[in-house]
Amino acid sequence: MQRYFIKTNQIDEVTQSITLTGDDVHHIKNVMRLEVTDTILCCDGAGMDYRVRIEQISGSEVQCRILESFSSTGEPNQVEITIAFSLPKGDKVDWVLQKGTELGAYAFIPFTSARTVVKLDEKKAGKRRERWERIVKEAAEQSRRGRIPKVNALTTWRQCLAQFSSFDRILFAYEKGGKALGSLLAEKEAKRFLVIVGPEGGFTEHEAEEAVNQGAALLHLGPRILRAETAPLAVLSCIQYTYGELGGEPL
Amino acid sequence: MQRYFIKTNQIDEVTQSITLTGDDVHHIKNVMRLEVTDTILCCDGAGMDYRVRIEQISGSEVQCRILESFSSTGEPNQVEITIAFSLPKGDKVDWVLQKGTELGAYAFIPFTSARTVVKLDEKKAGKRRERWERIVKEAAEQSRRGRIPKVNALTTWRQCLAQFSSFDRILFAYEKGGKALGSLLAEKEAKRFLVIVGPEGGFTEHEAEEAVNQGAALLHLGPRILRAETAPLAVLSCIQYTYGELGGEPL
Repeated sequence: MQRYFIKTNQIDEVTQSITLTGDDVHHIKNVMRLEVTDTILCCDGAGMDYRVRIEQISGSEVQCRILESFSSTGEPNQVEITIAFSLPKGDKVDWVLQKGTELGAYAFIPFTSARTVVKLDEKKAGKRRERWERIVKEAAEQSRRGRIPKVNALTTWRQCLAQFSSFDRILFAYEKGGKALGSLLAEKEAKRFLVIVGPEGGFTEHEAEEAVNQGAALLHLGPRILRAETAPLAVLSCIQYTYGELGGEPL
Repeated sequence: MQRYFIKTNQIDEVTQSITLTGDDVHHIKNVMRLEVTDTILCCDGAGMDYRVRIEQISGSEVQCRILESFSSTGEPNQVEITIAFSLPKGDKVDWVLQKGTELGAYAFIPFTSARTVVKLDEKKAGKRRERWERIVKEAAEQSRRGRIPKVNALTTWRQCLAQFSSFDRILFAYEKGGKALGSLLAEKEAKRFLVIVGPEGGFTEHEAEEAVNQGAALLHLGPRILRAETAPLAVLSCIQYTYGELGGEPL
């Protein structure tokens, strides 16, 4: 069944109806060629799914009646994993966002640190963020997520540090040494993870110190050097797996 | 220290010397500007590393003396994980090969199955394989692997099935249902894994049956739909992690 992400203000709780607008109307009418009485799935992007029946199709709106609502099955509920990454070169950002969304990342914080090569002025950063949000939305629809992960505005390492207090386990991927992931996940007590990955040239020792001073644990990922875009996806996979969020009996 | 993959026939055990040729000579002389008495690392691509001292640089050869030899630290030794994947569209193959190599894959088996979209004739397949081997070699050098994972020639699903008997645990990623990865790794008895991932459109039920009849376990990766290129990397990460191959105390 085709899925559409909607905003909560498209839901009318009183009349139990949902109004679709914009690109979704075009998609319903011209791409999917759906008709009145057909059913679709609407996701409010905050963890709720609605199975709805199309009641009226006009030029710019599709009116639907809610048949049932339920928690999205595609959302991790044991753990929230935010990926903070120093902006890598080329289209590697796209990859981290797309794959991270598929693998269930909660949010993304792109930042610039001492050895970040890519420089974006404010205007470019704004345009890139629009692109990033589009990638994440499409990946969330495709992978059957129940919400769209948030992509923060490009920030500085200092501002990233200031956000540490919102998390209860902060993992700082560091090639110069640190603890094994297994030892950092052993207790399974943390729920809100922040996974931090540096640029191609790595973090400076000073940045590692700052992270530790702010409560991060240094994480060492073994003898093979993982690229900047590979490390966050490997760590994300392993945390989800540890918390039982990567597979189980058939739904 | 700069690393170069060599072939075992470049090693002279009697005189304890290694002769570098071809592109590596250009790289040593003109890119790295190394000189006699400098030391480099040579990897035989089969799990042995050699620390060597440059003794003579001529037009087409670099002669080195072996100072010490040791097992490559970048090679997984608890487990061998081969990735068999139905040829995906575009450059996604490159990604599976590059990231798979970083994450420690042992070998790759690209195949075509019922719903594979990409069609390659023999000539094109040969060219693509050369490209794939180059990607894997570069990823192995960069990530400090001790050997270059083998990339099999493009094969058919039937020929892939015929190779099952070489493995002691075969995981068939199947979106229609199966066991959780955790339950399939619980005993940690298997050493030679084959992880099989289908094309964008998935495997047919008949192919799943054939795999099970040949000894594969159906593997279900949870409620989020992972793309064809994401699934093998997530599974690879989790198996390596389970076997203690993704991180540990600093080396």
